[in-house]
Amino acid sequence: MSGILYGLGVGPGDPELITLKAHRLLGECNVVAYPAPDDGQSFARAIVAQYLKPGQLEIPIIIPMRRERFPAQSVYDSAAKDIAAQLDAGHDVAVLCEGDPFFYGSFMYLFERLSAEYSTQIVPGVSSLMASAAALGRPIAARNDVLNVIPAPLDDDAIRQRLAQGEAIAFIKVGRHFARICRLIDEAGLTGSAGYLERVSLDNEKIMALEDVSANEVPYFSMILIYKGAEDWIEKLPLSGTAKSVDAGLTA
Amino acid sequence: MSGILYGLGVGPGDPELITLKAHRLLGECNVVAYPAPDDGQSFARAIVAQYLKPGQLEIPIIIPMRRERFPAQSVYDSAAKDIAAQLDAGHDVAVLCEGDPFFYGSFMYLFERLSAEYSTQIVPGVSSLMASAAALGRPIAARNDVLNVIPAPLDDDAIRQRLAQGEAIAFIKVGRHFARICRLIDEAGLTGSAGYLERVSLDNEKIMALEDVSANEVPYFSMILIYKGAEDWIEKLPLSGTAKSVDAGLTA
Repeated sequence: MSGILYGLGVGPGDPELITLKAHRLLGECNVVAYPAPDDGQSFARAIVAQYLKPGQLEIPIIIPMRRERFPAQSVYDSAAKDIAAQLDAGHDVAVLCEGDPFFYGSFMYLFERLSAEYSTQIVPGVSSLMASAAALGRPIAARNDVLNVIPAPLDDDAIRQRLAQGEAIAFIKVGRHFARICRLIDEAGLTGSAGYLERVSLDNEKIMALEDVSANEVPYFSMILIYKGAEDWIEKLPLSGTAKSVDAGLTA
Repeated sequence: MSGILYGLGVGPGDPELITLKAHRLLGECNVVAYPAPDDGQSFARAIVAQYLKPGQLEIPIIIPMRRERFPAQSVYDSAAKDIAAQLDAGHDVAVLCEGDPFFYGSFMYLFERLSAEYSTQIVPGVSSLMASAAALGRPIAARNDVLNVIPAPLDDDAIRQRLAQGEAIAFIKVGRHFARICRLIDEAGLTGSAGYLERVSLDNEKIMALEDVSANEVPYFSMILIYKGAEDWIEKLPLSGTAKSVDAGLTA
């Protein structure tokens, strides 16, 4: 009998923000696979490192890190083959996914290749979108607000159009598009209602009003959250200033 | 010294989908508050009932259930006062929030009233948006897709405009707007790419292609997920039909 393939959301970075279910499955699966860069540590693995067991087989999926380009499909062909071999041998395989597996996650490439043939279960995780709002101390959206999630690599016109609509906006994959996105947000008169977040829930996280960011380039995994709906959060929950009573939710 | 106020995301319904952090804090807080209808059980409390301890003080926040209207602010004035009294007495208070506290959650009403005066920490949770995609067996969005989250109570024109844009769409708060939303989705030619979800991650969950739903009215906490981006998920990951190998992620 074949093993089960798990797409395991491991949350935004704080090891305490994984679910009880992901925690249990990490202890039960014989095989653990995860994306890893060709020049460093796997972030997904680092999040759960303390929960892994000595006897587990690990399958790193080496992703060549050409900044912000989508990796060659051959990487996933090969990883799917390795994982299928383990499933065929009757081993359950947990694929570690940063944040949530199905929210802009690369797990989809394995899912497409394997879910028709193998019993597959997705374990949803805490997304960096929700973790960012928690860290910023301002809700994402409320009541009948429309939320737009916008990948920053989109072109200026597409972004201008999106910025004009909706009550809540989340820019993801900001990275090297940072200066351009800031300019477009400023054009739309929304800088004062924008928060900037980087490496949320980790020890080296950065959380601040967008207008307080001095860098021109920022990490790929950074986010900008904008609110322009009817709630009076901009006055009530100011992003700038000192004495912010909301902390980042870090594990002590 | 005042206690700490926690906004605790308890996830979409499966008790195993809460985070390790929420689980720990549930055991540590002297006081637990949660929204409850005036005619039945609190859903948020039910999710974590097995983790509560006998000695904890419980503060139900009774919300009169006038369908899909936002409750009177006096309910939150009064709840904030009760919670403040506990914080003043030095007790930590965990407010239980279905899904994630800051993703269209009613916790914002307490947060607005209390976060300036009391040390407050938000613990993000697994949102029903992510849990729904997991249960449906189809990613929400990928690469440079734009995601629109649309509350179903919006009027026809606003919804028509939204349906024409973006690559991924999530309708929330569908409830009694179901028939109207279905008509608008059909008008836009998107019925074939829509999935319907109800009470995701619970024993009585329903997950199906939108075109297979026969009801005219559905529960308030139901969702419709549409994908119309560049990924070929509509062919590769059909929502209709038998032999769906992806199960709902239910705890055994």
